[in-house]
Amino acid sequence: MASVLPASKRSMRSDRNTYVGKRFVHVKNPYLDSMDEDILYHLDLGTKTHNLPAMFGDVKFVCVGGSPNRMKAFALFMQKELRLEEAEEDIKDICAGTDRYYMYKTGPVLAISHGMGIPSISIMLHELIKLLHHARCCDVTIIRIGTSGGIGIAPGTVVITDIAVDSFFKPRFEQVILDNVVTRSTELDKELSEELFNCSKEIPNFPTLIGHTMCTYDFYEGQGRLDGALCSFSREKKLDYLKRAYEAGVRNIEMESTVFAAMCGLCGLKAAVVCVTLLDRLDYDQINLPHDVLVEYQQRPQLLISNFIRRRLGLCD
Amino acid sequence: MASVLPASKRSMRSDRNTYVGKRFVHVKNPYLDSMDEDILYHLDLGTKTHNLPAMFGDVKFVCVGGSPNRMKAFALFMQKELRLEEAEEDIKDICAGTDRYYMYKTGPVLAISHGMGIPSISIMLHELIKLLHHARCCDVTIIRIGTSGGIGIAPGTVVITDIAVDSFFKPRFEQVILDNVVTRSTELDKELSEELFNCSKEIPNFPTLIGHTMCTYDFYEGQGRLDGALCSFSREKKLDYLKRAYEAGVRNIEMESTVFAAMCGLCGLKAAVVCVTLLDRLDYDQINLPHDVLVEYQQRPQLLISNFIRRRLGLCD
Repeated sequence: MASVLPASKRSMRSDRNTYVGKRFVHVKNPYLDSMDEDILYHLDLGTKTHNLPAMFGDVKFVCVGGSPNRMKAFALFMQKELRLEEAEEDIKDICAGTDRYYMYKTGPVLAISHGMGIPSISIMLHELIKLLHHARCCDVTIIRIGTSGGIGIAPGTVVITDIAVDSFFKPRFEQVILDNVVTRSTELDKELSEELFNCSKEIPNFPTLIGHTMCTYDFYEGQGRLDGALCSFSREKKLDYLKRAYEAGVRNIEMESTVFAAMCGLCGLKAAVVCVTLLDRLDYDQINLPHDVLVEYQQRPQLLISNFIRRRLGLCD
Repeated sequence: MASVLPASKRSMRSDRNTYVGKRFVHVKNPYLDSMDEDILYHLDLGTKTHNLPAMFGDVKFVCVGGSPNRMKAFALFMQKELRLEEAEEDIKDICAGTDRYYMYKTGPVLAISHGMGIPSISIMLHELIKLLHHARCCDVTIIRIGTSGGIGIAPGTVVITDIAVDSFFKPRFEQVILDNVVTRSTELDKELSEELFNCSKEIPNFPTLIGHTMCTYDFYEGQGRLDGALCSFSREKKLDYLKRAYEAGVRNIEMESTVFAAMCGLCGLKAAVVCVTLLDRLDYDQINLPHDVLVEYQQRPQLLISNFIRRRLGLCD
């Protein structure tokens, strides 16, 4: 397997590097290894058309997020932060043959967009996990970085998820398999969350907390917004719902964390969710931050993950 | 309101033009009209920043589909088919300020991408329906064009949905509102489906049928695929499930139709779903068509909708 760092950086690996043993990605599908070819349709990659171990074997950190532009910005940022001597134009979309997802790689860091909502991230995760399996990656940490609505906390706060809950504040993901409903755990890696929280303390003026994240199937009615095309409840009912969420430990709301936690957990990937909040839903429904504030908030999860990766690689000053 | 056609084409409107009366888009939200400003966040449009009636008031046909590239190709195709004298480079992404969705307009036709899955299309539909409301559009027909997996029918067949059903073959969409589950109807416009079916008969070598469409929350486990990162059922259980779906009237499977039918129905939009099938799921799980065949199949819904729109506008030869 290729080194995760260029030769010049290898000596910088320190004791903080926590890679011990080899933790491979588990696919839980008895049919997969007997397939002659595996076409990762929505990534426009495949086992016969691409040398996946050569392309991805050195991946140690996978960062996923909804927006293609943000994932490209993150990859460029990581390239700079890891001081990898490639030109900016070398960051190319690896999935250029499809417009479903966008993927960028810089050194040991893979950045992929997942679109919005549970079904969209679920397709990407199935194919990404198979990709990591085919590429024989080991000791992979996966982090979702995104935006969210906060509950009872200041906009701009970064929430590290301890557990993802559904619309009923339950720590579960209900997966329909054929016509059965199977309930899966949505716990995330506790040590990883704490490591990320510790990283956040080293960044000045960086409000961060660990809390529950609520994952919903839509942005308007399911999150109690009064500004959708459809709204059948009162302002009081909305506030009652969001306050009950707060009392249950929910500090932010987004649309992907339950299935992300469930699938990564089942496949042996150490996973975390780090989202910045763009507004306090107890006050507002619409996101109307000035552009520069919005941009700065959206960079916060990227900054935290960059610090975390550099620490893990022993690159911190 | 601006004419739907350039002056030179107006005389071509025939008796086939079925615009009678004015059917406005209903938003069902008592709070909306009292809002000082409505920011359509994921479309990067707003009531204060954009003159929505001037930009969109003449829209009569809205076509939505998952893939941005396909929606752009459709807009370019419609521009040619409607013989609108704009240069190709005039087709610009109206939502260029965001990478969540892509939107193109040519004459009375609006084409928008919606990503993959119920949550992703649901966000777009909330904002699109508000857009049509703010723009005071009337007599709008909305059609989802997409790709799907077929059941027991030849790949390349175009399925016009009569009713969208969920994973349990029920004609319903379950919407979580706060923490209640509300069941909504998923019926589509019968006359519109038949009109589309009649259009299909005029195209040579164009296999088309009307049937039920099953809408699932994921592509792998929920559609009985044996090739995901997770698979806990046997080949026999898969085939049993798909055969039961066929017996219940399901002819294809995709991931957006139930919420599309439910929301359009509630908001008074005449709606249809037209998807081509890329494989027969009784035979295969993976999509491995040669590129040129895949491209030709994906164009079929576009060709049908173009014929339909031209007939509606009295532009058929």
